[in-house]
Amino acid sequence: MNFASDNTSGAAPDIMAAVTAANAGYAKSYGADALMDEVRGEIRRIFDAPEAAVYLVATGTAANALSIACLTQPWGSVYCHDTAHAEVDECGAPEFYTNGAKLVRIPGDHGKITPAALDTTIRATAQGVVHGVQRGMVTITNATEAGTVYSAAEVAALCDVARGYGVPVHMDGARFANALVSAGCTPAEMTWKAGVEVLSFGGTKNGCLGVEAVVLFDPKRAWEFELRRKRGAHLFSKHRFLSAQMAAYLKDGLWLRLAAHANAMAARLSAGMSALPGGSLVHPTEANAVFAAWPRAGHKAAMTQGAAYYLWPHDQSEDGPGDQPLSARLVCSWCTTEGDVDAFLAAARG
Amino acid sequence: MNFASDNTSGAAPDIMAAVTAANAGYAKSYGADALMDEVRGEIRRIFDAPEAAVYLVATGTAANALSIACLTQPWGSVYCHDTAHAEVDECGAPEFYTNGAKLVRIPGDHGKITPAALDTTIRATAQGVVHGVQRGMVTITNATEAGTVYSAAEVAALCDVARGYGVPVHMDGARFANALVSAGCTPAEMTWKAGVEVLSFGGTKNGCLGVEAVVLFDPKRAWEFELRRKRGAHLFSKHRFLSAQMAAYLKDGLWLRLAAHANAMAARLSAGMSALPGGSLVHPTEANAVFAAWPRAGHKAAMTQGAAYYLWPHDQSEDGPGDQPLSARLVCSWCTTEGDVDAFLAAARG
Amino acid sequence: MNFASDNTSGAAPDIMAAVTAANAGYAKSYGADALMDEVRGEIRRIFDAPEAAVYLVATGTAANALSIACLTQPWGSVYCHDTAHAEVDECGAPEFYTNGAKLVRIPGDHGKITPAALDTTIRATAQGVVHGVQRGMVTITNATEAGTVYSAAEVAALCDVARGYGVPVHMDGARFANALVSAGCTPAEMTWKAGVEVLSFGGTKNGCLGVEAVVLFDPKRAWEFELRRKRGAHLFSKHRFLSAQMAAYLKDGLWLRLAAHANAMAARLSAGMSALPGGSLVHPTEANAVFAAWPRAGHKAAMTQGAAYYLWPHDQSEDGPGDQPLSARLVCSWCTTEGDVDAFLAAARG
Amino acid sequence: MNFASDNTSGAAPDIMAAVTAANAGYAKSYGADALMDEVRGEIRRIFDAPEAAVYLVATGTAANALSIACLTQPWGSVYCHDTAHAEVDECGAPEFYTNGAKLVRIPGDHGKITPAALDTTIRATAQGVVHGVQRGMVTITNATEAGTVYSAAEVAALCDVARGYGVPVHMDGARFANALVSAGCTPAEMTWKAGVEVLSFGGTKNGCLGVEAVVLFDPKRAWEFELRRKRGAHLFSKHRFLSAQMAAYLKDGLWLRLAAHANAMAARLSAGMSALPGGSLVHPTEANAVFAAWPRAGHKAAMTQGAAYYLWPHDQSEDGPGDQPLSARLVCSWCTTEGDVDAFLAAARG
Repeated sequence: MNFASDNTSGAAPDIMAAVTAANAGYAKSYGADALMDEVRGEIRRIFDAPEAAVYLVATGTAANALSIACLTQPWGSVYCHDTAHAEVDECGAPEFYTNGAKLVRIPGDHGKITPAALDTTIRATAQGVVHGVQRGMVTITNATEAGTVYSAAEVAALCDVARGYGVPVHMDGARFANALVSAGCTPAEMTWKAGVEVLSFGGTKNGCLGVEAVVLFDPKRAWEFELRRKRGAHLFSKHRFLSAQMAAYLKDGLWLRLAAHANAMAARLSAGMSALPGGSLVHPTEANAVFAAWPRAGHKAAMTQGAAYYLWPHDQSEDGPGDQPLSARLVCSWCTTEGDVDAFLAAARG
Repeated sequence: MNFASDNTSGAAPDIMAAVTAANAGYAKSYGADALMDEVRGEIRRIFDAPEAAVYLVATGTAANALSIACLTQPWGSVYCHDTAHAEVDECGAPEFYTNGAKLVRIPGDHGKITPAALDTTIRATAQGVVHGVQRGMVTITNATEAGTVYSAAEVAALCDVARGYGVPVHMDGARFANALVSAGCTPAEMTWKAGVEVLSFGGTKNGCLGVEAVVLFDPKRAWEFELRRKRGAHLFSKHRFLSAQMAAYLKDGLWLRLAAHANAMAARLSAGMSALPGGSLVHPTEANAVFAAWPRAGHKAAMTQGAAYYLWPHDQSEDGPGDQPLSARLVCSWCTTEGDVDAFLAAARG
Repeated sequence: MNFASDNTSGAAPDIMAAVTAANAGYAKSYGADALMDEVRGEIRRIFDAPEAAVYLVATGTAANALSIACLTQPWGSVYCHDTAHAEVDECGAPEFYTNGAKLVRIPGDHGKITPAALDTTIRATAQGVVHGVQRGMVTITNATEAGTVYSAAEVAALCDVARGYGVPVHMDGARFANALVSAGCTPAEMTWKAGVEVLSFGGTKNGCLGVEAVVLFDPKRAWEFELRRKRGAHLFSKHRFLSAQMAAYLKDGLWLRLAAHANAMAARLSAGMSALPGGSLVHPTEANAVFAAWPRAGHKAAMTQGAAYYLWPHDQSEDGPGDQPLSARLVCSWCTTEGDVDAFLAAARG
Repeated sequence: MNFASDNTSGAAPDIMAAVTAANAGYAKSYGADALMDEVRGEIRRIFDAPEAAVYLVATGTAANALSIACLTQPWGSVYCHDTAHAEVDECGAPEFYTNGAKLVRIPGDHGKITPAALDTTIRATAQGVVHGVQRGMVTITNATEAGTVYSAAEVAALCDVARGYGVPVHMDGARFANALVSAGCTPAEMTWKAGVEVLSFGGTKNGCLGVEAVVLFDPKRAWEFELRRKRGAHLFSKHRFLSAQMAAYLKDGLWLRLAAHANAMAARLSAGMSALPGGSLVHPTEANAVFAAWPRAGHKAAMTQGAAYYLWPHDQSEDGPGDQPLSARLVCSWCTTEGDVDAFLAAARG
């Protein structure tokens, strides 16, 4: 009953097998391995983007921070949601990689930015006035940190606003697969067709050991990205081990199947939590994370039985009346089982 | 016959097996995995350093740049050899991570800094004068980029000079194991007992997939290191896969056996190259890399038979008289075989 | 009728005379001039701070950004008011000088942070959790950007909160003199006795040509400040011209007289604006700036007669019903006359 | 007898008078003052560069560091002479402003880079290889730190080399006026006609209080420069006081007359030092600084009589045989008199 995060899961068997297989013999280093050619071709095919530049790094923060640094000047605003990983969970990596750009927070229900809020925020920038930080770029997260999903149309609406101000859009897709299977559109529709210029295309949380692709749909910043990656110390010498993960992840739609499974487990869990006495959802469940509230007694019972998850927000007290609801985040992954879900539901009932 | 680099090799079987084994079940993320406890304990034991702080990253450049950033202010000098990886091969990662410290190059034969040269260079710093960059830190590479090795006494002599100026010392040990088995001293003697404060302890080149430990013998900068690592996007979520590599690498002295093998192969190759007609060594062979010169005709023959290696320096012409010597770097690794060496020697004979 | 800013005024006659006088003969450069000794001694005397380190720069942004950089790590939070100059009007200078610290905005009426709001904000920092930006420092502005003033007791209350979290406090005193004469306390009470560690002590807006002192009450960061100043290109070679301004500014309480005059003019203007038909104050007038609203027709009349000032916020339309109030900022300075004020009041009546 | 530096002199009377005159009344701030329009027009006229963007800052280091930051990426090489002010005397300001570019030193006699040395150095850059820092920009100093001068043809030859590699050229003209009157060419010939893209056009050392113009002959980076200037805290609010200095400096060729005088004094001093018993020149005297060696006894005598100057290099001992020559730098300025020179020559004779 581990719902602490999708990163407490290991790697899917096919992906681990591919890493092992990639170990045979010598291979060119620093991204010149043959597997990387395969990955590049496959991502271009999947995204219907034959010109896209594709690179691999090992962490989501690296994918985001490097992407953001390619899209804004140091004196630019990075428009993001209040709860964006880049704002909250990267210890200032975007500020470090951009040499001091300013993250400008946009509030919004259920982890999502609305076009109106984005428009208001960008418009408030002191563009053209030397005293203020200028317009930089937009980063949106899909699936969001609240477990919700922007549809392709919603992404397009945000990109339209950004384009009106001449501002590029990055998508933090640490859970891109979960978003995509939820939204039911194509990878191209969710990204470049909607106006996204750079995508952090996550693998780690969805069954890889540690790999994220960065997809630059407009390859004009490709060489800059390569230099930033190296300078940031994110270029792997034995790069084949990143390539192998990503190749296996993409092969025969494995990435989509893993995400569909995680989403299905979250749906099952979400339905169960709603039905609990005193249970309710904090956010709609649209991807692989459930944000629910239920009575403190149920939390105690679940924890006693070894369930792992985080109260969300973290600072709620575990002490207090048993019937008082506490909210929590419950994350499902490619390896969550129906048994896990059902056992958790039984436990949380108190 | 792949002598291009030790990073064109894969991972040693035991290490790959450990990664696979580590995949079972759930594990705490971001370095809280049980395997990391094991690694920390083992490194402290090996280095006889019970207080040392130990962290893992995936690239050597990350290990170096983060270590250097912990040891100097932005307005500090980073004293290093002319050929140091940090100076030549990291695309300015040290400058990026330090926010603009100045790498001060020190020439020296065979990749090594002499105490006298270090003393002269540090003394020339405009210490205490606000117009100039101040003293920062020293970084030495062992084994060096020239395939030579500092003995523990030589390291101590450099550290003594540095200490006289109040300057801490970092060791880039991307090939630490190769240096250690060559020098025949203990890990402690080679590092903190000699005066090294922070070590980049390499795994990748010596049989891992991609892992380097950073060992801070004085743990006072441990938390700073953790923040810099996260902010640099080098903290792995599925950290167990780094831990597993390092745990297997250290287990039962595997790291030393792998390095001893690589060094032995280099010694065999070195002896053979010296004995070639027209062959000579550019640097003494003390670790796992051979720097040799031999006639251009022998290069052509070797390349024709599929040998992979780099001319060193790179800008020598492949065209010209057949008996003119060209120099090259030939790197052996844990997986180089006697057959590889002998086949290469036969080919290079022309 | 120029109320655009206190920086549209020139220099007070005594200060200009001092600059001219300082031009005689040779003088040591880079801050070793004799006048700087005088300035240092005088500031220490005025602030009853015999150990304070004192430095001069030429712009308020330099004073702030350098001070902030001395008080936080790159991964620190810089707690400031929503409207702080450092947040709004410095084009990201604090981010640049700190190498990417995060400005954390705190809302508050009339430009002021309350202790409760500061406490809530600091407490929300993910201190000790590596994923988040850590606690850094607090910067408060006195007089504020809203023309209000923190009393010494209010400053002390904020510093107490900060101290409880181990966080140092900087005061942006671009208009320190105006705040001081308004608050009626001593310089020491307003600063180090209340808990302020570093002060940007403004001269430019209050009658100098361009000089700000930075006062480090705890001199432990003095040398770091000197290096940051030089590295930031803010160390003047012909430093005597900064020293001369500051020396004259401080001499015989000139700085206080200039500020008292500006405040008095603002009080006169404020009273008049309140009494205008349709007029009202947006913020209390406690220093040298008046934030008032009055009918659009009155704005048109004032502008027609050549009055200079800014609508505040800037984005109000000048077109619309004549009786609709628009708000504006009106800044008085050392050279504002009663005639200017009365003429403006007459004009703004419409 | 003050030859310590041209920055120990004050301001020329006309320039001080202009500052005083500029103090009358209100003026727009932040560079929107009418005097700045005048300055911009005059510099465009003088340089025959009607499109040039012109900005003022107060220090030479600011002019250089901001210019360099506009001309290179963070991962670029900044090619400069071993003794360049940017390398030696700015405490890493170029590294700070560029976010970590690498200064690549080029040796050369008498403070000058030769085209061949520049070519060799640029060619050695690992351009296009992601592991190394890339080509960035060239900065040359005229007059040099050795008191020598590049002719317009020599500047053009360097720029030709740089252009061949696609690398822009900056000129550190802290002593531009001294170089120009020495070289006897037009400002345009010395700069953009030769291929210089950005000029730091010094005023401070040649009779101003503290002002340097940055001239961007290609205005495409003008807005970037403005943002970098503000973000670096170098945009003056009471900007008129910078404008006034520069306007007076340029008026009726004052800048050229001041420099011609300083150069003439240096020539007189140089001739005298050559003729001293045991005296010799270390570098040819081509601008306003004399680098000479003469017996230690003569140094003692000069110092005893109050002469101010620096031994060059600094680390020569003042103790030792009286007839042993020590080398020194002697800088003349707009206010050096023939009497100063002759008194010094008499004293140095020992």
